[in-house]
Amino acid sequence: MKLLHVDSSINGAASVTRQLTQAFVDQWLSAHPDTEVERLDLAAETLPHFSADSMIIRRPVTEPSDAQAREAALAEQLVNQFLAADVVVVGAPLYNFSIPSQLKAWIDRLAQAGKTFRYTEKGPEGLATGKTVIAVMSRGGIYSNSDIGQAMEHQESYLKTIFGFFGITDVRVVLAEGADLGGESRAKAFKAAEAAIQAAVESYDEAETAA
Amino acid sequence: MKLLHVDSSINGAASVTRQLTQAFVDQWLSAHPDTEVERLDLAAETLPHFSADSMIIRRPVTEPSDAQAREAALAEQLVNQFLAADVVVVGAPLYNFSIPSQLKAWIDRLAQAGKTFRYTEKGPEGLATGKTVIAVMSRGGIYSNSDIGQAMEHQESYLKTIFGFFGITDVRVVLAEGADLGGESRAKAFKAAEAAIQAAVESYDEAETAA
Repeated sequence: MKLLHVDSSINGAASVTRQLTQAFVDQWLSAHPDTEVERLDLAAETLPHFSADSMIIRRPVTEPSDAQAREAALAEQLVNQFLAADVVVVGAPLYNFSIPSQLKAWIDRLAQAGKTFRYTEKGPEGLATGKTVIAVMSRGGIYSNSDIGQAMEHQESYLKTIFGFFGITDVRVVLAEGADLGGESRAKAFKAAEAAIQAAVESYDEAETAA
Repeated sequence: MKLLHVDSSINGAASVTRQLTQAFVDQWLSAHPDTEVERLDLAAETLPHFSADSMIIRRPVTEPSDAQAREAALAEQLVNQFLAADVVVVGAPLYNFSIPSQLKAWIDRLAQAGKTFRYTEKGPEGLATGKTVIAVMSRGGIYSNSDIGQAMEHQESYLKTIFGFFGITDVRVVLAEGADLGGESRAKAFKAAEAAIQAAVESYDEAETAA
């Protein structure tokens, strides 16, 4: 079993999502000690923006430049790492109503026709099936309890869209909301997120046992 | 009158949004030859991802590092340029159901409390009022004619959310959809977008005359 542990928060040890992705990995390893964990820290080792050179993965050329060859190799490595994982835990804080651009730069490398999706006569079809994604999200305020909040957040809805497009039907949400609203609210946010982590680990095990 | 002309497409001369933002600027200048145009090309002069050093704009420190000082100066320059513009035309292609990370890196610099919004007892309040934003968007496929398409796109809905948060009530949409679906569809997409550009220029003039 392979687990890919992805973080994108820029807040280091103070990050809510980093604490929670680590908590998930720890609980996961308690339940599945044989798991091989790969680590991808998108704030520590930042990917460049998806650029004209990166477009090589969409429009191959016969004689790529050095920059294009580097981009192709990077995208190949990232998509293979993603496809090899059975479980992907993604730390995704809400920055200005969306995900960090660091995380988008990773997603832009994963979106490769023939790897994570393909075009068919009936439209695109996801190819990264059979995988579980744990979307670990933090928000300074509370968005989930109002129509306006739900319409404004482009974090959970985006991650569900893109991972769904890749064919992943099992996207589990770990959400810490209101972490910036003071001590009690922060504690409550952590408590809810920790319960979601425990449920995610346990329900995965039950599904596996039943299968 | 000041106009800020922003592009973020990585596709150079082949870019749909670049052709359309330029068409808007050309038409605008015909109607308002005295306009001062500033240019921001986020693909040519890429902004780094918003990072731990960039957080200086949210959490000031007494002795910033060189990297922090550079980030603070960059953010200051970008937000002042944005605030000084009466009209902002933003080229925003759809990449993997969202905007280019280059564009997000710009938005992350604009979101500054006390500049584009402020916190009040009743919640956040936008401060960049009285401005017109022309959101020039392209999409390879067609998203606007189905519930699923509208739920999947995180481009128009995101730009409306963030510019609305900044207090901008006049966000006009120029949309070229289906540009990758073949010659006739591409021509149709351009025609619709060009009509929207003309309408945006003319309706602005009418509103100004009436005011």
